Amino acid sequence: MNILSSADIRKDLREVLISKYGNLTFQFYSDISEADKNLPEADVLITYGEDLTARHIEKAVKLKWIMVISAGLDEMPFEAIGKRNILVTNARGIHRTPMAEYTMAMMLQAARQTKRLIENEQQGTWERTLAMTELCGTTICVLGTGAIGQEIARLAKAFGMKTSGINRTGRKVEYFDRVEPCDNLDVLLTEADFVVSVLPKTKATDRMLAKKQFHLMKQNAVLINIGRGNVIDDEELIGALTEGSIAHAVLDVFNEEPLPKEHPYWRMKNVTVTPHLSGRSPEYQPRALEIFERNLKVFLQGKENYINRIDPDKGY
Amino acid sequence: MNILSSADIRKDLREVLISKYGNLTFQFYSDISEADKNLPEADVLITYGEDLTARHIEKAVKLKWIMVISAGLDEMPFEAIGKRNILVTNARGIHRTPMAEYTMAMMLQAARQTKRLIENEQQGTWERTLAMTELCGTTICVLGTGAIGQEIARLAKAFGMKTSGINRTGRKVEYFDRVEPCDNLDVLLTEADFVVSVLPKTKATDRMLAKKQFHLMKQNAVLINIGRGNVIDDEELIGALTEGSIAHAVLDVFNEEPLPKEHPYWRMKNVTVTPHLSGRSPEYQPRALEIFERNLKVFLQGKENYINRIDPDKGY
Repeated sequence: MNILSSADIRKDLREVLISKYGNLTFQFYSDISEADKNLPEADVLITYGEDLTARHIEKAVKLKWIMVISAGLDEMPFEAIGKRNILVTNARGIHRTPMAEYTMAMMLQAARQTKRLIENEQQGTWERTLAMTELCGTTICVLGTGAIGQEIARLAKAFGMKTSGINRTGRKVEYFDRVEPCDNLDVLLTEADFVVSVLPKTKATDRMLAKKQFHLMKQNAVLINIGRGNVIDDEELIGALTEGSIAHAVLDVFNEEPLPKEHPYWRMKNVTVTPHLSGRSPEYQPRALEIFERNLKVFLQGKENYINRIDPDKGY
Repeated sequence: MNILSSADIRKDLREVLISKYGNLTFQFYSDISEADKNLPEADVLITYGEDLTARHIEKAVKLKWIMVISAGLDEMPFEAIGKRNILVTNARGIHRTPMAEYTMAMMLQAARQTKRLIENEQQGTWERTLAMTELCGTTICVLGTGAIGQEIARLAKAFGMKTSGINRTGRKVEYFDRVEPCDNLDVLLTEADFVVSVLPKTKATDRMLAKKQFHLMKQNAVLINIGRGNVIDDEELIGALTEGSIAHAVLDVFNEEPLPKEHPYWRMKNVTVTPHLSGRSPEYQPRALEIFERNLKVFLQGKENYINRIDPDKGY
């Protein structure tokens, strides 16, 4: 059996897999262009999920399983995959820890004026009058109460914050004081000091945060987007930040990535831009391959109890 | 009864006290030089504790109680106070939340390369290859397991960190996986990714972190000092940071404050200087006056069950 990887797997982790599964053939490449020639023999493909086109799927005539070692699936050629009935699993859940830590880091930065402190430090200025605030007692609204959103809420509760969130049905989720269905987002926005989106890119999430939502938000509100850029209407956000309808935006994801050099976000004082790295972690690949190995066992045994199985029709 | 304040109490909080305790006389001033002339009539003095000298105590001939609305007592003229048997209480505990949030903020900054990210943002650089690390799974050693140290440990546990700490006797404290007496500090230092000092200034804490300790620490270790500057041997710390024996120091307190303009700390890449503000919070005075009011009730009733009573002989 041939397992082909277009995801640049760490050398030490490659070696572990090769020595552990001596009867399987692993072919590790650093990207899809290198892996391309081996597609016709591949039974299994390990990918970050952003490099595949319908043409790759057609070329991989023996392909039975695609393991996507990320959580974002918006670039996947699901139509071609669905037609062939290829199994798709992803690494949902492994971003939980780094993305929740990123979110807490950014909320603390905003509350404690990190940028100003660093500026003062660069100038050797001892300014003790800077207004520090606390997370304790503030309210966070998390858009998306899945594994990542729940981990953010868990940490927020540890800091003494009030937590609210939205999901499709409004079902209760641990660590959230209040959950509403997506349609009721507006009622939660009016009370939130921090609004954090971990939503995926779907039709339903498109421009979910636009003019109306920014006006409902508190003037001191900080918006953090670590899900997908499509959730935000950029023009309206720039307007809201310029007018002061909300205080600050921390953006890790964008409608166009890399964020173009000339984009106003880069230069706005009350915007923090980070280059889509909230999920980065030295534990990323080990955790993703742990899921791969669990599913590999299921695959080899011909069973069906996969974890993180994706429905190609729905895209999640 | 006369209550004199040399601590610049917020106007709204002054008004609450005046209206609540109509039979008491409050005299609020913004500092000790303004309050000085009223010292002879004062029964009670509210102070930040850094403004008093033996001369003030002698002048305050009727003084029975000093409420220090901070936690640091190293500037208090305890000899003069002890002679007159004046009651001293402080606001120990109110710094817990902001100082623990500061510590988490700074650990996350170090783990997630905030300074580099901000630099990249200023230059419009989209650099996704920055090595992010996680707090989860790392080890923190807290010097001082009192109210503040314990709150830091509680949050650290929520992040999945291992926690160790030192106190005088090595007694067990909640949220610490391991506690050792001060003499055993060295064994804990070798395993810590983060070393946080919340120690007060006493003879015993003087230069507790010097050459030997820096060499025992891990090369990736981040040192955070939010207690008092005397704990650190500055010359040896500068040496350790320059040689790379430890990775980074976050310093909020110093042997001389404000930190002199020409001090090397300001310009060192692997030092973060903040101007003694880890304890700052909009909740500071409300929380401190809550303690004052609790003790005021005890004082007015002539009872003895004060909270946060200080022994002038010991200084804590």
